[in-house]
Amino acid sequence: MTKILKPRLLTREVFAPYGDVVQLEGSKHFTINHGMTERFHDLAKIDVEREGGKAIVSIFQGQSYDFPIQIKMMERHPLGSQLFFPLNERPYLVVVGQGEDKLDPTTIEAFWARGDQGVNYARNVWHHPLLALERTSNFIIVDRDGPGNNLEEVWLDESDYRIISSV
Amino acid sequence: MTKILKPRLLTREVFAPYGDVVQLEGSKHFTINHGMTERFHDLAKIDVEREGGKAIVSIFQGQSYDFPIQIKMMERHPLGSQLFFPLNERPYLVVVGQGEDKLDPTTIEAFWARGDQGVNYARNVWHHPLLALERTSNFIIVDRDGPGNNLEEVWLDESDYRIISSV
Repeated sequence: MTKILKPRLLTREVFAPYGDVVQLEGSKHFTINHGMTERFHDLAKIDVEREGGKAIVSIFQGQSYDFPIQIKMMERHPLGSQLFFPLNERPYLVVVGQGEDKLDPTTIEAFWARGDQGVNYARNVWHHPLLALERTSNFIIVDRDGPGNNLEEVWLDESDYRIISSV
Repeated sequence: MTKILKPRLLTREVFAPYGDVVQLEGSKHFTINHGMTERFHDLAKIDVEREGGKAIVSIFQGQSYDFPIQIKMMERHPLGSQLFFPLNERPYLVVVGQGEDKLDPTTIEAFWARGDQGVNYARNVWHHPLLALERTSNFIIVDRDGPGNNLEEVWLDESDYRIISSV
């Protein structure tokens, strides 16, 4: 049976079980550089150090998805958080789910992120890989490099979960 | 005597003494997410861990500068690298200089960065604070949080160093 995932607007409150929303609104900030710059400070819990890991910075160039989007696979990173911030000011989708030992597919939910919002998936949180919209888009990534297996994937019945529109 | 700094185009080669240019061209990359994403991997030397430091992610909202730009002050961070990537696809200026114990002002040089290029100042490299152009612009920052004094500033004779145009 097909389940339609209707994306909700991304806010700190709705995303709290999964990690951080990286945005200016509601963030602590202060003035630096003798008045010329406002620093919105320490916006995400960068959790990458266990088992000899360290933070690295990468850019993901994500092909865009067309609707309807089938959620075929979800993944998680057992050893570290993973932060995405869009570099082209374009909205994108975020799909997450819950489950300790394994993903509980009934918990999968979708969020629509503005082009000025980033997300930081907490360590071990199930999420869909990057879902760019409209056209190929770049995102800056802060995640973990280091020893150990930091990727777990689960495949879903292709017909089960679909997103048919952005909001 | 006024010295005019003429910005050069930012490339990895010219910026090598100061740190990393974060860009897609010339970076190692590989395909992930079952073909949907290209990962340009580990693009900068994130050097933040000494003396109990760790990586944090912030957003700087930088007011724009109008030409002529006087270089009145330079700074450096003795304990960690500092990465900037533009979030609005607008070009900006990068001003750096050399000197171990203190800045040698005769080495100050300027670079013009495209809106799809980031810079990562290596630890202890003299640089001017964020120089946004055209209008107020946001940048994502990866730098160090932790104990110790991580800021050193030096003030220059206001009349000495100026940038009068972008390239």
